[in-house]
Amino acid sequence: MAELRAQVCAGNQQLFEAGLVVWTGGNLSARDPETGLVAIKPSGMQYGQMRAEDMVVLDLDGNIVDGVRGPSSDTASHLRIYRLRPELRSIVHTHSNYASAFAAAGMAIPCCLTAIADEFGGPVPCGDYAPIGGTAIGDEVVRQLGRSPAILMKQHGVFTVGATIEKAIKAAVMVEDVAKTVSIAMGIGRVESLPAEEIAANFERYQQRYGTGSASVGVRS
Amino acid sequence: MAELRAQVCAGNQQLFEAGLVVWTGGNLSARDPETGLVAIKPSGMQYGQMRAEDMVVLDLDGNIVDGVRGPSSDTASHLRIYRLRPELRSIVHTHSNYASAFAAAGMAIPCCLTAIADEFGGPVPCGDYAPIGGTAIGDEVVRQLGRSPAILMKQHGVFTVGATIEKAIKAAVMVEDVAKTVSIAMGIGRVESLPAEEIAANFERYQQRYGTGSASVGVRS
Amino acid sequence: MAELRAQVCAGNQQLFEAGLVVWTGGNLSARDPETGLVAIKPSGMQYGQMRAEDMVVLDLDGNIVDGVRGPSSDTASHLRIYRLRPELRSIVHTHSNYASAFAAAGMAIPCCLTAIADEFGGPVPCGDYAPIGGTAIGDEVVRQLGRSPAILMKQHGVFTVGATIEKAIKAAVMVEDVAKTVSIAMGIGRVESLPAEEIAANFERYQQRYGTGSASVGVRS
Amino acid sequence: MAELRAQVCAGNQQLFEAGLVVWTGGNLSARDPETGLVAIKPSGMQYGQMRAEDMVVLDLDGNIVDGVRGPSSDTASHLRIYRLRPELRSIVHTHSNYASAFAAAGMAIPCCLTAIADEFGGPVPCGDYAPIGGTAIGDEVVRQLGRSPAILMKQHGVFTVGATIEKAIKAAVMVEDVAKTVSIAMGIGRVESLPAEEIAANFERYQQRYGTGSASVGVRS
Repeated sequence: MAELRAQVCAGNQQLFEAGLVVWTGGNLSARDPETGLVAIKPSGMQYGQMRAEDMVVLDLDGNIVDGVRGPSSDTASHLRIYRLRPELRSIVHTHSNYASAFAAAGMAIPCCLTAIADEFGGPVPCGDYAPIGGTAIGDEVVRQLGRSPAILMKQHGVFTVGATIEKAIKAAVMVEDVAKTVSIAMGIGRVESLPAEEIAANFERYQQRYGTGSASVGVRS
Repeated sequence: MAELRAQVCAGNQQLFEAGLVVWTGGNLSARDPETGLVAIKPSGMQYGQMRAEDMVVLDLDGNIVDGVRGPSSDTASHLRIYRLRPELRSIVHTHSNYASAFAAAGMAIPCCLTAIADEFGGPVPCGDYAPIGGTAIGDEVVRQLGRSPAILMKQHGVFTVGATIEKAIKAAVMVEDVAKTVSIAMGIGRVESLPAEEIAANFERYQQRYGTGSASVGVRS
Repeated sequence: MAELRAQVCAGNQQLFEAGLVVWTGGNLSARDPETGLVAIKPSGMQYGQMRAEDMVVLDLDGNIVDGVRGPSSDTASHLRIYRLRPELRSIVHTHSNYASAFAAAGMAIPCCLTAIADEFGGPVPCGDYAPIGGTAIGDEVVRQLGRSPAILMKQHGVFTVGATIEKAIKAAVMVEDVAKTVSIAMGIGRVESLPAEEIAANFERYQQRYGTGSASVGVRS
Repeated sequence: MAELRAQVCAGNQQLFEAGLVVWTGGNLSARDPETGLVAIKPSGMQYGQMRAEDMVVLDLDGNIVDGVRGPSSDTASHLRIYRLRPELRSIVHTHSNYASAFAAAGMAIPCCLTAIADEFGGPVPCGDYAPIGGTAIGDEVVRQLGRSPAILMKQHGVFTVGATIEKAIKAAVMVEDVAKTVSIAMGIGRVESLPAEEIAANFERYQQRYGTGSASVGVRS
């Protein structure tokens, strides 16, 4: 449990260092595969001040198992996703600017770049608006989850998921990166989707690398 | 008084580190609740060089009580706001780029994201143009102050207020962050306001957290 | 002369740290008031590697008086400006992105913000295209110089001038900052000039502060 | 070979420090002129963790000569370019945001700034879409290579080439810098190409400096 907390704390700080979150916004959680418990960022704490012991540990019903602080106000959304998708081990939520701009406009990010096909396997979907605090956001994220590890939530922000903390962070970094490129492209010209066969070819190449068992599988260099 | 100066100096430097101000632009002040005196950034001094003893201490009539430097040229605006709103303890002024772009266009920031509803309780208003140096800016800021701790001033910049230095800085950080997201969104699609009931629900959730007495109350994580 | 070189080297590095230049682009020079000699950045040298002894010292005819490196390829433009305007002591040239975007479009930056009226006293003018290497750029910069210490050169970049190195750098920082705000504003709405009397009032307030003799005169806080 | 690996590792890290790549994306390679062997970034490794011994050394047929890691998934593209253009010694590939935005829109960067004429000798071309992994990308990059050391690849990203590692990196830095300026300019007004004779004059001045034999030849300051 101490190790999970340390990893979750380090993961949250990585979001801040990558410029994906400001002030106390955003959060990362991870699930321990053995106990099923989830560690998540505490509520209202700035990233620079967080230490591993500030992380809050909960069960899937939201009972605090360990921790002196209150959990993130997005905790219910995280727990709902973990409950519905047992294979997931980490979830990230951000309001990163470029990806959230697509969310603000209620638009998916079109699959107009090889980097989007590689990482997301198609457009990055935008889920319907859902209120914060209950199960609605988790339900909508899971409803949208297909190939893409990133889901935009309309008029809210970004959720990413992964089989590891690193993969969830990677999806958060990559969705902001491609959202920036695509939003600039839409300002200077027209973007169009890659053909379905090219999307499939890029995504399959990625999946094959993903299955090799190396620590860096599935990561295009 | 030494402590107030140290806090005001640190607060001003936080604005710079957050990228909200350049060169000698922008300023933060705070009011001592016991004496009613206000400490503010000195005029024309770069952030990296400021020390606590450079802060200027004034009474609400603008008389310099302590300090060897001249006060910020926006001092009259700060003092006017403190005079009209006794509950406020800190004021921030910036020309941060994205929020000031809305000010340049004379537009409020529409309440199209949950983050805006949470922090600002509705659109971030844009006050009418008012000349620098007298009471006009302070009067217009106060006239616009409702729920939102941030006010845009047309063709000028941003003022934020708070019951603590931290809250005034937070509003300055958050208004720039949401202005960036919304301006990008307006470039790629259409943004629309959240429904009034969703704005109210988000803001009330925020307010309830605000009332719990913890150091991090009112801060969404 | 050693001191001038050290100041010119430090000034060039400030341009890099402020994000106004990349790689070996851009340059800053200063004139020694006693000898009339000019020190300028060497050609093709990256900012992180420059030391004071790399600066090149020339007379106004372009003869190298001291230095082991070749002078910046914009040296002729600097020397022409110094020759025509004896009161100037420092010149900065950058391709900073937002200000150069106005130059690329051949547009002045409209005086739509108090910060522009304060620092530039009106719109930041855009000079006609002039070829690099001879006297044409210097002639056009001087032809455009009125109140504004910054001049855009069409399809090229930015020149700023000052009575001190610090003032020339300040103008370069401020023109990029306001160009960023105004370009974002033009993407979300319409910008309009401040009324002439407000421009004059803001600029005069600035000028009065400018005349007080303090080290930080003329700098709005 | 150890020196080549160290230089390739340092070059890759420079791409990251310059903000041109994120996570494990992008890659730099260099060819040893004596052996003809190529060293390239390993696949799926983050920039902060790379050391010289992680670089992969291959011959032009793609046989791994030395190295414990898998080579970048763009290796086939690099090798094809080296095979077709024996004078090239280094290749850079990035998804840098502003340049890749032109690629996403399938547009060349118009030669509307002196900096573009200097470095690229005309518009930065945009090659047709080509699938990742075989010889198609390398063939298309070489087909587009004229004066410009940078080529955009439609719906993919940027390739730059050079006679040294430094020149390939410089082209990657400069293409992103000018793409940023031009994309902002297209948002606020109209851009037009420089006249052909001005492009030629700027490029020739650059070429003449290029021929002087100094370490910094060809670099405009």
